Amino acid sequence: MTTLGPGAAVLAFDVGGTDMKAALVDETGVLRDTVRVPTPLANGETGDRVVAEVAALAEQFAKRHPDVHPAAAGLLVPGHVDDVHGIGVFAENLGWHDYPFRERAEAALGLPVGFGHDVRGSGEAEHRLGAARGFDDVVVVTIGTGIAAALFIGGKLYTGGGLGGEIGHDRVAEGPMCACGGRGCLEAVSSAAAIARRYSLRTGQEVAGAKEVLERKRRGDANAAASWNSALDALALGLSHVVALLAPQAIVIAGGLSEAGEELLQPLRERLDGILTFHRRPQLIKATIGGDAGLYGAALTARDVLNGDDA
Amino acid sequence: MTTLGPGAAVLAFDVGGTDMKAALVDETGVLRDTVRVPTPLANGETGDRVVAEVAALAEQFAKRHPDVHPAAAGLLVPGHVDDVHGIGVFAENLGWHDYPFRERAEAALGLPVGFGHDVRGSGEAEHRLGAARGFDDVVVVTIGTGIAAALFIGGKLYTGGGLGGEIGHDRVAEGPMCACGGRGCLEAVSSAAAIARRYSLRTGQEVAGAKEVLERKRRGDANAAASWNSALDALALGLSHVVALLAPQAIVIAGGLSEAGEELLQPLRERLDGILTFHRRPQLIKATIGGDAGLYGAALTARDVLNGDDA
Repeated sequence: MTTLGPGAAVLAFDVGGTDMKAALVDETGVLRDTVRVPTPLANGETGDRVVAEVAALAEQFAKRHPDVHPAAAGLLVPGHVDDVHGIGVFAENLGWHDYPFRERAEAALGLPVGFGHDVRGSGEAEHRLGAARGFDDVVVVTIGTGIAAALFIGGKLYTGGGLGGEIGHDRVAEGPMCACGGRGCLEAVSSAAAIARRYSLRTGQEVAGAKEVLERKRRGDANAAASWNSALDALALGLSHVVALLAPQAIVIAGGLSEAGEELLQPLRERLDGILTFHRRPQLIKATIGGDAGLYGAALTARDVLNGDDA
Repeated sequence: MTTLGPGAAVLAFDVGGTDMKAALVDETGVLRDTVRVPTPLANGETGDRVVAEVAALAEQFAKRHPDVHPAAAGLLVPGHVDDVHGIGVFAENLGWHDYPFRERAEAALGLPVGFGHDVRGSGEAEHRLGAARGFDDVVVVTIGTGIAAALFIGGKLYTGGGLGGEIGHDRVAEGPMCACGGRGCLEAVSSAAAIARRYSLRTGQEVAGAKEVLERKRRGDANAAASWNSALDALALGLSHVVALLAPQAIVIAGGLSEAGEELLQPLRERLDGILTFHRRPQLIKATIGGDAGLYGAALTARDVLNGDDA
């Protein structure tokens, strides 16, 4: 099981578009307790509501585990994030603009707070504790509802002013239209959500998600195969752009879609190999931490604050 | 005029596929003397011949400028370069494989030698002395016979194991075939050489280079306009991939094609703007050092060796 190793007890919060997850990490570095609640969406007030929920969850942990005394908290949110100033600049579905998360969470919790971007934070967890460990130049690509990457350059996370790693909005085709307003974005073809959506568009049949499309493909559904294969073609093209530019030693695939394992990775390797020529071939590997990577990333951020490595 | 500023006198060598350039840099930091000779191509012996030429040029400078005493040399070569170990790993047109340039040049010159990649070296010159100065996250794209980039991340050059920045081999289309064996590489559509070649293919007319294609376009030649415009379309798409991934503050365009200035940059900005959505918009600017950037880069490498910043 993944562990942060011995250190201060901390609180970890990973805010998503639908749910937010919280964990209490004890001094041995394991997630002693985890909770998942709906993200309190409230248009312009989502920021305040999220911080209030963070405080309520902290209180809940304190009551249930009076022996654990967190010394800091880590908070990850999606969208355009200014890690340096602790600000949620913008998140389309979540309704905040320039919300000072770190400051407000510190006031609400009475603790120092580490703050960052969800995909970069979970990538950091894969880099320090998971599949990306040991690589200096490595890209962790998270594929779920959207697609985004955490870039590690010379062993260090690169943020690009909060907008680096947006591989989901790398143009790989002439269509379809993307929610961002762009055309042919990788995310509009190859995210788990896009695979399901495009299958439904093609067949008129609702599916629960990309997993069901993959199951239908296994059973010989030609439409499912077409949706799945075009997603892999676009993903390989997007990754080839990463390779041409950054020549990473490895690319780690994380997020919901990575649960398909070698059924995703093997054909992806073949496609990528078909595009590349003299480029440095990256290892293509599956994330090992899985769904709790965001919580581990938040916990790492919290400990970094205590160690003076951040904030 | 560009100057390195006061410091040690050094020798600078910039080896290209056709010519090699040499300069004597004096203690005020200016190029006191420059020489251009044909690159001595000799298949498996090109490496040795280049080093012999380097020694001969050094002797020539010593005779002509007995008052200048170089304390080190800098040597840049194209292809796949291992900057760390001082090795020319491979260069398609130049015929070397794992040639220990730094070691051999040090033996031939009796001086410490800084060694690196031509495009990364000239990018370094633009970053320290030219248009990319003052930007921490900036990409210098050189467009000439080929296309390649020097990536600066957090103020530092990123090499990617000697294969980073190969934006010329970023797939932007389904065709044409590229010399690297790939299909639809940016370099095969948008390099200065490709613009001229594709115009000739289209019309059956030989042209001296991309500059002549641009001149014909100005005079209303529809074929010239088509070749030029498709090059710009592909270039904008390739740059949009850089922006999605790295979100640089600026992109500096260098190399022969950059001499077109705003006639290149303005339509490129418009095309890039048409692709991007929420991405961080980079400044798109012309390199300021120009054709001698490789010599300045080589000279910087030489001074770095003396300062203990390299080798």
